[in-house]
Amino acid sequence: MMSFEATREYIEQLRELIEEGNKKEVAVLMKDLHPADIAEIMDDLNTEEAKFIYLLLDGEKASDVLIEIDEDDRRRFLKVIPAEMIATRFIEYMDSDDAADVVADLDEDVQKEVLNEIEDIEQAGDIIDLLDYEEDSAGGIMAKELVAVNENWNVATCLKEISRQAEEVDEIFYIYVTDDDDKLKGILSLKKLILNHTNTKVSKIYDPDVKKVFTSTRQEEVAELMDKYDLVAMPVVDEIGRLQGRITFDDVIDFVRDEAEKDYQMVSGITGDVEPGDKVWHVLRARFPWLLIGLLGGILSAVVLGSHEESLTKVTQLAFFIPLIAAMAGNVGVQSSSIVVQSIASGVKDIETPVRKLVKEISIAVLTASIFAVLIFFYNFFVSGNMNLTYSVSISLFIVIIFASLFGTVIPLILHRFKIDPALATGPFITTMNDILGMMIYLSISGMFFNLV
Amino acid sequence: MMSFEATREYIEQLRELIEEGNKKEVAVLMKDLHPADIAEIMDDLNTEEAKFIYLLLDGEKASDVLIEIDEDDRRRFLKVIPAEMIATRFIEYMDSDDAADVVADLDEDVQKEVLNEIEDIEQAGDIIDLLDYEEDSAGGIMAKELVAVNENWNVATCLKEISRQAEEVDEIFYIYVTDDDDKLKGILSLKKLILNHTNTKVSKIYDPDVKKVFTSTRQEEVAELMDKYDLVAMPVVDEIGRLQGRITFDDVIDFVRDEAEKDYQMVSGITGDVEPGDKVWHVLRARFPWLLIGLLGGILSAVVLGSHEESLTKVTQLAFFIPLIAAMAGNVGVQSSSIVVQSIASGVKDIETPVRKLVKEISIAVLTASIFAVLIFFYNFFVSGNMNLTYSVSISLFIVIIFASLFGTVIPLILHRFKIDPALATGPFITTMNDILGMMIYLSISGMFFNLV
Repeated sequence: MMSFEATREYIEQLRELIEEGNKKEVAVLMKDLHPADIAEIMDDLNTEEAKFIYLLLDGEKASDVLIEIDEDDRRRFLKVIPAEMIATRFIEYMDSDDAADVVADLDEDVQKEVLNEIEDIEQAGDIIDLLDYEEDSAGGIMAKELVAVNENWNVATCLKEISRQAEEVDEIFYIYVTDDDDKLKGILSLKKLILNHTNTKVSKIYDPDVKKVFTSTRQEEVAELMDKYDLVAMPVVDEIGRLQGRITFDDVIDFVRDEAEKDYQMVSGITGDVEPGDKVWHVLRARFPWLLIGLLGGILSAVVLGSHEESLTKVTQLAFFIPLIAAMAGNVGVQSSSIVVQSIASGVKDIETPVRKLVKEISIAVLTASIFAVLIFFYNFFVSGNMNLTYSVSISLFIVIIFASLFGTVIPLILHRFKIDPALATGPFITTMNDILGMMIYLSISGMFFNLV
Repeated sequence: MMSFEATREYIEQLRELIEEGNKKEVAVLMKDLHPADIAEIMDDLNTEEAKFIYLLLDGEKASDVLIEIDEDDRRRFLKVIPAEMIATRFIEYMDSDDAADVVADLDEDVQKEVLNEIEDIEQAGDIIDLLDYEEDSAGGIMAKELVAVNENWNVATCLKEISRQAEEVDEIFYIYVTDDDDKLKGILSLKKLILNHTNTKVSKIYDPDVKKVFTSTRQEEVAELMDKYDLVAMPVVDEIGRLQGRITFDDVIDFVRDEAEKDYQMVSGITGDVEPGDKVWHVLRARFPWLLIGLLGGILSAVVLGSHEESLTKVTQLAFFIPLIAAMAGNVGVQSSSIVVQSIASGVKDIETPVRKLVKEISIAVLTASIFAVLIFFYNFFVSGNMNLTYSVSISLFIVIIFASLFGTVIPLILHRFKIDPALATGPFITTMNDILGMMIYLSISGMFFNLV
């Protein structure tokens, strides 16, 4: 692999050199590294050390590194350097989308200062335009930099114009074709341009079948479309079809990864990112909220069980199956809610009617409940020999599984309907709720069997 | 949005037309659809209906659709059509990587037949080459189609050669530069090619700083590198550096999504993909294994509790806190294991030493355990008034949380060390294990406090 690995030795050597203030040696160490690699190194340095390195790098590389590093680190770093430096050493070298992201993160007064320090008025204008869009809309993630040609030009004019425009654009991917009103007409691949004669008119060779999104289109939908149609870049237009910017594949990869991580964290009961290098209190803070909910749920379960103290005193064996009922309720609930959340997240269109959907969910719940009720029936029948207990546990388990799967299915759907992230209702939330519910059902049913109520 | 939506009405209309055998109308309905949209429609049709549509589409489109549809559906469809048709109507229109995937899925005797029916010997050779690589290696996912130029050519020769080669390649992205031995020297962007004079030599303008992987590089690593360095395409070379193929960004998006889904399913206790349209038994099969493990775990917990029957009979209140202990053990375990799994999956390099890592894990566990032990202590102190119970529950909770986080951290690491997917140890697995462990600790500790053992 032609990839760089930041070893512990490397980092230690680097920190020593920085402490000595050895600019020359540090510059040598950084010279051939990709910005993404330098960003990885920055992760292990403190703000002062990071600053030392930033000041050594040339503008292009320094700004690339700044975009690649962790958001929290970036915020901390930008707090310690003056607005003028943010503008001239970083922002001016960035694409408009990255620049807007960085500026959006600054305090409002610093934002103004930085925008005023940008020398290239056109770039400052682009950033201001981008800051106006909703953060999670296509407008909020697009870059203004792109290559566009007029449909009336010929190939030769195009090549000349592209040479001019291309200086600002990192990678071209597609050339967008617009009419005299800047309305997007289609795309032209570089391949087509190379393969055609210089006199050929653009209108003759461009592909009018272009996928596009509006500035207001939600980020999720953009990602879904680009993934579905395998697009490297997606053009963004305004309400009347004028070309405004483009979104590239790397944004989609990051989005897909981030969304998946968010859902994964929810189902695992973690709030926010936790990474290997994180401080103890950071990890603790991410884990605390759901554990607290679990504790409160446990106390509520204790209250429920306490209200059936008589049953538990008379028939101690009832207590033996508390973990089983709670575990099955929890597992069934997590499964159901996760399936719903995943199908919402995948954006798969669902042509089942609501009625058919509900019938299916109930069939699955009844089948699952029956299988496990029968299994535990046989276990208790042969092992415990207590028929009342055998009936109580089996019937309770049957009802608990059905309720747990229904709640697991319905609650995320309701949250989604009210525009709340359905992933909230996975993991510890549904487990805790189903634990309490499971105890209520179990003790009520067994109370009836032992004629205790 | 310029995107197509397959409504229920649309599907029903289509099915009717297919039943009538109305080829003309169906062709009209399909005409302007993107292969990815047709694939989405296919999802709701049976094999016979799908076959009707495939035979209407031209070769290019039919093969694009076949690649886009669900794997199971594809297998089922290919079973009902003759080998000759697979070769001439589908494989011959595909890129080598897709063709190899399709062929790999066929039964061995059908594979041979299909390969022999391919007219383009070079393509058949490419497919055979690709089939030799490990499925999850760079060789196994790369495509043979790419555009390469010799370092000694000038821009004019390049443009001519690219025109010739480009016919086979859907999108060019990068032009690879090789020497006379076919060894990869660097890349050349189309942008550079357009911006330079026709007499300029390639060796003067190409970028030698190219990221590349070997045919044996693991898929995970390829995805990680392409994501990190924001690459649209990654060249693949053999042991001595000769250019063998390229991997494109869409493979990476799919891989990232699939991996995230797999981990999500594991932590939710689901085995295999579950989608909205799936049949009842399919969903049931995906959910059954972990529920069964949950049931067996519940039975084991019952056995553990049964062996402490005396304690539970004498002090009924002990039973009240069973759900709390089990829930906290479960939640802590899932959190710890998920963090480990996510950090392994993210491939973030971890420069913490093993000792520092363990010290940190233990600190977090001790802090968490202390906080919740104190909280539950106050609850019981003020509400139950039974000091033995108050001590039992608090001390048990303290010990249970520490064990649960240690197991949650260590077991996935051990699995990973033995090359088993660490995600196996998340979700229901760790919950079940920690339930049993929690009961053992809880009843032993309280036994001591009530002098029952």
